Amino acid sequence: MVVIVGGGFGGLAAARALKRSPVQVILIDRSNHHLFQPLLYQVATSVLAPGQIASPIRSILRNSQNTTVILGNVTGVDAKARNVVVENEDRTGVAVSYDYLILATGVQHSYFGHPEFEKYAPGLKSLADAVTIRNRILRAFEVAEAEEDPSRHQELLTFVLVGAGPTGVEMASAIAVMVRSTLKKEFRRIDPTSARIVLVDLGTRPLGTFSPDLSRAAQQRLSDLGVDVRLGEGVELIDEQGVTVGGERILGKTVIWTAGVAPSPAAKWLGTETDRAGRVRVKSDLTVANHPEVFVVGDTASVDQDGKPLPGVAQVAMQQGRYAGNLIRRRVVGKPLSGPFRYFDKGNLAVVGKGFAVLEAGKFRVSGFAAWLVWVAVHLQFLAQSSLRVSVFVQWTWTYVTGQRGSRLIVKHHCD
Amino acid sequence: MVVIVGGGFGGLAAARALKRSPVQVILIDRSNHHLFQPLLYQVATSVLAPGQIASPIRSILRNSQNTTVILGNVTGVDAKARNVVVENEDRTGVAVSYDYLILATGVQHSYFGHPEFEKYAPGLKSLADAVTIRNRILRAFEVAEAEEDPSRHQELLTFVLVGAGPTGVEMASAIAVMVRSTLKKEFRRIDPTSARIVLVDLGTRPLGTFSPDLSRAAQQRLSDLGVDVRLGEGVELIDEQGVTVGGERILGKTVIWTAGVAPSPAAKWLGTETDRAGRVRVKSDLTVANHPEVFVVGDTASVDQDGKPLPGVAQVAMQQGRYAGNLIRRRVVGKPLSGPFRYFDKGNLAVVGKGFAVLEAGKFRVSGFAAWLVWVAVHLQFLAQSSLRVSVFVQWTWTYVTGQRGSRLIVKHHCD
Repeated sequence: MVVIVGGGFGGLAAARALKRSPVQVILIDRSNHHLFQPLLYQVATSVLAPGQIASPIRSILRNSQNTTVILGNVTGVDAKARNVVVENEDRTGVAVSYDYLILATGVQHSYFGHPEFEKYAPGLKSLADAVTIRNRILRAFEVAEAEEDPSRHQELLTFVLVGAGPTGVEMASAIAVMVRSTLKKEFRRIDPTSARIVLVDLGTRPLGTFSPDLSRAAQQRLSDLGVDVRLGEGVELIDEQGVTVGGERILGKTVIWTAGVAPSPAAKWLGTETDRAGRVRVKSDLTVANHPEVFVVGDTASVDQDGKPLPGVAQVAMQQGRYAGNLIRRRVVGKPLSGPFRYFDKGNLAVVGKGFAVLEAGKFRVSGFAAWLVWVAVHLQFLAQSSLRVSVFVQWTWTYVTGQRGSRLIVKHHCD
Repeated sequence: MVVIVGGGFGGLAAARALKRSPVQVILIDRSNHHLFQPLLYQVATSVLAPGQIASPIRSILRNSQNTTVILGNVTGVDAKARNVVVENEDRTGVAVSYDYLILATGVQHSYFGHPEFEKYAPGLKSLADAVTIRNRILRAFEVAEAEEDPSRHQELLTFVLVGAGPTGVEMASAIAVMVRSTLKKEFRRIDPTSARIVLVDLGTRPLGTFSPDLSRAAQQRLSDLGVDVRLGEGVELIDEQGVTVGGERILGKTVIWTAGVAPSPAAKWLGTETDRAGRVRVKSDLTVANHPEVFVVGDTASVDQDGKPLPGVAQVAMQQGRYAGNLIRRRVVGKPLSGPFRYFDKGNLAVVGKGFAVLEAGKFRVSGFAAWLVWVAVHLQFLAQSSLRVSVFVQWTWTYVTGQRGSRLIVKHHCD
């Protein structure tokens, strides 16, 4: 019995690699859907609907007859007894036994020791987060339109994004595009294009993981879109009225956190060695010390290659998941073991507004419309189901041509 | 200044009728979107995404230069001072003055004196309701799949729908179709087709507003789909374990309320005469007694025609909204007044499962596939925006051919 915890890029790749193996597989996730996280910012900015970037995990794996998908929350691992503890709303503390375990449990937000920021500055990791942020962004314009006193409009229409990594850059530019295209003609008392969009980062350049010339291109593009990029300054305070950055107070009702992540509690469950960020240190075959039957893959695993830690991106998770699945299959059927895991970097992409992206692959770097076309093609290709590819492609074409968005809803959800 | 409260079928029709009038219009709604309620059950059963049946009201009215759309909750009307009181999260109790007022505030659920049922049996009126019901239906199958004890599966897979009007019939048949097409091959421990679907009503036939032969056709079709239709019995109790109907206990974790509605508090705001259901009694020109400047339209208005009260359906609301808008326009430009409001009934439709509907128009009645094609055409036609028409048509075709649904997500939303 192989138990996979997590149905993200890593867990799903592992399950797929085990499809034709003579083993039973149980995949456990606390969501019923695999989420295509790289497009989550497009749900938060109303372009795509939640259902366009998420597919039911059991639907993706419906032809894997050896695989059972379970909705449940894993709360612990007993590596000695070889079982994981699963809860759902019907039952608590059910032990599920394994012969092999793959932990692909990802990351969550981190507010760097300031959990009190979360209430005012939601992060973006799940569909529920994206819908919360979508509600807040759209509601800001609605509240401003309802306000008859123009002196309050600027504060209501100030958006602060904390963190200038890919998500912060993509979201800031998407909001800038939205006010110019979608919202422009629909308000009577406010001018949506007067919205102030501030992107804050402690580092000295946006997209810090890209090469400096691409950061410069992105920064120029952000300026062209009217985004106020503030670098080298940390956020000291976030409250109901706004943000304090480098001693200066920015009044703004809508703050979004895209700055930091912390690994899942996998290391705590295993009681194993971690890196400084808290990710599980794994061996070159992605197993945990003294537990050749326990694999950790994706964002919650820490492994170095050529002296540098691998980044927490979808590509790494997918390749690691596939490697772990294949390794288990080989062990089960008694074939010789393969070599250590090695990441092959196909390149990195980030989009900055409409028709503009930066692309870096090895020594090859390009920014602009051509990079954006590559971005479109790559993201369509990696969507989990062909029906989503068609639906997202049609929506993007429609939005590109008309400026209209697909899912511009404010919904005050019941919480249950 | 014309103030319209409500952006449903009635309010939107009124705003459209006033588009080219020499008056300023303010439309106030507590949602940012116009919702196509007749398709709400398709969101609850995962076929369509919320964004496919809802459009931002300000987007629909963006070319009506005389119209300002405000997101806010109307909490009262001062008919003497001629203003309405509006709240939003930023401000409370703002008075908005009017020369003419159109109240199109619709209905809400009613549990007939049993508010304690709501917790266990959610109703279906808003997108948030539909997402809650979708979560519960999908979660029932997930909890059953996670349950290793087969003796508990039947209870977990029992769905009880209270109320056999169009919504109850459409939802029950949609769940029956879903277990047979979409879910069939995706579970390993349970057989989704073993789900028990019970449709309960106090009346003696389903679709009681249709003619008896169409009710019989619908009932036959429901039986063919495996739905257990229980008529002439009232619901005595709903709790966490299930439902008590006509003295019998039905154990079932998932209960959905489609039985009753109550009008909005418009009558209370106006302090005016109501019918027995609490709807505002209006004159033949849809105005309120002693207030020729106040109109009430749609589900919250009570008006008789040929000795019978008009039903609470979208068609009536649309025709009334248009009438009120036109009447105000005529008064403003000083043209002679038109005659009293008269409803033209274009016919009624209800769908029962895949490729089957009942259709009644005057003395013409038909059930089956042809009626279903009419249902498809009519519902596509009345969607508010052409982009939604395309998107819903494509989704329906896809679902019809493959059995796959468009938005089968369980999302535990944040409530804020």
